[in-house]
Amino acid sequence: MAALSQTRAGNFPAWYQEIVKEADLAVTSPVRGCMIIRPNGNGMWERIRFLLNARIESTGHENLYFPLFIPMSFFEKEATITDGFAKEMAVVTHHRLKLIDGVLVPDPASVLTDPLVVRPTSELIIGQHFKESVQSYRDLPLLWNQWANVVRWEMRTRLFLRTAEFLWQEGHTAHANQADAMEETMRMLEVYRSFSEEILAIPVITGEKPEHERFPGAERTFSIEAMMQDGKALQAGTSHYLGTHFAKAQDIKYQSKEGDIRHCHTTSWGVSTRLIGGVIMTHGDDDGMRIPPAIAPKHIVIVPILRGAETDEDVKQYCNDLCRTLREQRFMDEPLRVWIDYRDDRSVDKVWTWIKRGAPIICEIGAKDRSNRVVTFSRRDNIRKPDGKILRASISQEAFVANATTLLQSIQDGLLAAAKERMLGNIVTHLTSVADLRSYFGAPEGDGENSHDPFRGWARVPWSRPTGSVLDGITETLKSLQLTIRNAPLSQERPSGNCIFTGNPAVEEIIISRAY
Amino acid sequence: MAALSQTRAGNFPAWYQEIVKEADLAVTSPVRGCMIIRPNGNGMWERIRFLLNARIESTGHENLYFPLFIPMSFFEKEATITDGFAKEMAVVTHHRLKLIDGVLVPDPASVLTDPLVVRPTSELIIGQHFKESVQSYRDLPLLWNQWANVVRWEMRTRLFLRTAEFLWQEGHTAHANQADAMEETMRMLEVYRSFSEEILAIPVITGEKPEHERFPGAERTFSIEAMMQDGKALQAGTSHYLGTHFAKAQDIKYQSKEGDIRHCHTTSWGVSTRLIGGVIMTHGDDDGMRIPPAIAPKHIVIVPILRGAETDEDVKQYCNDLCRTLREQRFMDEPLRVWIDYRDDRSVDKVWTWIKRGAPIICEIGAKDRSNRVVTFSRRDNIRKPDGKILRASISQEAFVANATTLLQSIQDGLLAAAKERMLGNIVTHLTSVADLRSYFGAPEGDGENSHDPFRGWARVPWSRPTGSVLDGITETLKSLQLTIRNAPLSQERPSGNCIFTGNPAVEEIIISRAY
Repeated sequence: MAALSQTRAGNFPAWYQEIVKEADLAVTSPVRGCMIIRPNGNGMWERIRFLLNARIESTGHENLYFPLFIPMSFFEKEATITDGFAKEMAVVTHHRLKLIDGVLVPDPASVLTDPLVVRPTSELIIGQHFKESVQSYRDLPLLWNQWANVVRWEMRTRLFLRTAEFLWQEGHTAHANQADAMEETMRMLEVYRSFSEEILAIPVITGEKPEHERFPGAERTFSIEAMMQDGKALQAGTSHYLGTHFAKAQDIKYQSKEGDIRHCHTTSWGVSTRLIGGVIMTHGDDDGMRIPPAIAPKHIVIVPILRGAETDEDVKQYCNDLCRTLREQRFMDEPLRVWIDYRDDRSVDKVWTWIKRGAPIICEIGAKDRSNRVVTFSRRDNIRKPDGKILRASISQEAFVANATTLLQSIQDGLLAAAKERMLGNIVTHLTSVADLRSYFGAPEGDGENSHDPFRGWARVPWSRPTGSVLDGITETLKSLQLTIRNAPLSQERPSGNCIFTGNPAVEEIIISRAY
Repeated sequence: MAALSQTRAGNFPAWYQEIVKEADLAVTSPVRGCMIIRPNGNGMWERIRFLLNARIESTGHENLYFPLFIPMSFFEKEATITDGFAKEMAVVTHHRLKLIDGVLVPDPASVLTDPLVVRPTSELIIGQHFKESVQSYRDLPLLWNQWANVVRWEMRTRLFLRTAEFLWQEGHTAHANQADAMEETMRMLEVYRSFSEEILAIPVITGEKPEHERFPGAERTFSIEAMMQDGKALQAGTSHYLGTHFAKAQDIKYQSKEGDIRHCHTTSWGVSTRLIGGVIMTHGDDDGMRIPPAIAPKHIVIVPILRGAETDEDVKQYCNDLCRTLREQRFMDEPLRVWIDYRDDRSVDKVWTWIKRGAPIICEIGAKDRSNRVVTFSRRDNIRKPDGKILRASISQEAFVANATTLLQSIQDGLLAAAKERMLGNIVTHLTSVADLRSYFGAPEGDGENSHDPFRGWARVPWSRPTGSVLDGITETLKSLQLTIRNAPLSQERPSGNCIFTGNPAVEEIIISRAY
């Protein structure tokens, strides 16, 4: 029997809810739509932040920190953002509480003349600082990033995937011309792709979003799309070329080498705690999480098996020595993160705790291991024998220490390979009509992302890039099937067939699927 | 002439404002009381976060992330916090904007039944999760920390020192009994002390706050106090033993080993971006910042001196090689952070930029350095010759690379030693009455922290620990002199004299000074 009561095959949304809780990733809070990120989830986010930040800095960006609040008047001036987020934002209107007749209320005497919006994204406040920071072409490019919390008042929330408050990084850059800004847009898309595959072990398809899926105000929006274990797509990161839209709205100008005044071309790009949802739905199994070693808060957990016997002290000493020796090893240029679970609990329960939490390697060390100088361990990516029992191996302490980083790398690689095989093996290319789409994906059950649909994966179909009312009609049709266009993959050949919606000659292929 | 137009001796508050801007640390934003933290300031904070977090984790704490918002009803139940912050908090009352007659307003249809307070501190929301997380003594202690932004609606703000929004870490722990909780309180005070001295190169006095300066709801509050270059004190970190106050208010209970139900004893402790203000006022000079190498975003900046000549390519190659070799060195167990300033600007201006920004070592590399295989460099902690010109040294490239980390450590040590000498040399112990206090510190000028008072340092005086109305009277007297009690230093001998306020036998000595 699996460690979780729900299974992926049985009820994927219920499995997701259970694993988030049981793997110590997050819990709901008393604050509507806001989550408490628990140590195992927060630890993954800290690893993501640390490793992605290194890639953002090494591509020449600087981190700044901008205010949490944006004056409401800024949104009045820039309707694209306001409308793009359907105006669903948290608004601070008072700056003081007051007891009136024994009841605590926002003090009527503390009303703000210009209410403050809790940032849903920071284009408007960062654009203002671009304006102050650039005069001449010599000041360009400005390559800024911030790590922050943002708030969007979502009606229906789901831990990590869609919450009112979430954590993210948002890059914002200003350039002298379109070519430079587009180069930046694509550079960061590539940073996201390589980060997702190399660090999160999540393979993705990089591509351009269709017109109606662009970020508010963007001229071009690109995304990385990942396939979850239920076959649905998760947009894991986006990179936008914003043209001169925000520069014009916010008066971001510079004097060129030739002496004339020009508008900057800007970009923005971001990934969020949503990535953790992606890691769960890519690597989790029916026994709980499986965390890619690169982002595992703990690479190796050692569970001492203590018997209340005289040998206990020796076992502890052996565990401490093992831990210390392992911590001298390095994986991905950092010391191994090794932890001994000395909590007051039964060792078998501890082992199951770490299986559920997804520690890549779990060691069980008892008196026999100590006297034989061996280490008994399990790999989380291959945790069960054919008979369902926990698969353990015992090797000499020296061999275990010497091979620990190789083992972690092999787990990292194995998770990526399995996910890649699943994604590439589940993109059908034979659908040639809307009727095909309908019969392949079937009638939607329930409400989309929370429903447990049969696994279908993605369809890759020819597309003529329609616009206007034709596009609106197609969007409606897709919506009725609970399908969306994910993106048009980059570096593809011009297809030979016709668009499955318009019948016109196709200019590219697009990915269509159900999605989060 | 100094690089800044204001001097510390001439006008300390104006010097502070100028250095914050000129050293690329922070700027004011269009949002009342909120700052934009610029790359040099944000880089310091990232170093502080990284290094302090390692110490917080190595003392057994886990990081979690809690919601930005706390329901107003929580504050109604717990008046201590509410009153402690004078109810000055940002309150979210609406969750949507709406255009009404062409004007954007908070949508009246989106009023929240229970308004949300933007966290000024997180005891109330974290306490709720303590309650959910503890049943048995086996679950204790809970040792939690979070890195987050908080908002307190300050009337008068000053960059880094007092802003409406600031960044901090807040530790919150729950224990089975008073002894464990007090041990934790003191452990974290010691973490702050050692961090401040070893990493920020800021010497501090650790001690206990008097009754009227305690955190709202705390039974005991401890602080680290640092002396700024104008002689005023800066409270750089606090650690609170909260007793069972919050546990009782929030129903945080556990079943003991003996089977009875008991309340937990809790603690909280925090440091914030205010530390950066402390670094500035401890180490800055009239030429700008001097950043302790441990938290310098860039340890070494290389300014290539290019002449538009044929030799330029060779100089660049030489700089690139130097940079690469230096990055292979390690300081405080991390690779050296080295950066070549290839910006399109005059090299002399670049050098002054990095002097103002406080990079610990600044190299100037021209064709001659390249042909002689030497490195010409300046130490930021000793930047001028007696005649006022920039002090430079030239040594062989090999020697420079070999000695770089030693040089950085010597700068780190020198900054600490100078600050320590200043602090220890400026605590007077001869004041025996309020009249002495008045005549020593002089009549206050202006409004306290923004005024440029003559340097006085601190006074250490005997104290009988009065309470009630006597304490109130003393507080009023001190207030009229713009003086405050900083703390009662730890591990002191019982003094022999009498309290300078009450005339009663003293039980301890306290530090009195003007303060930020």
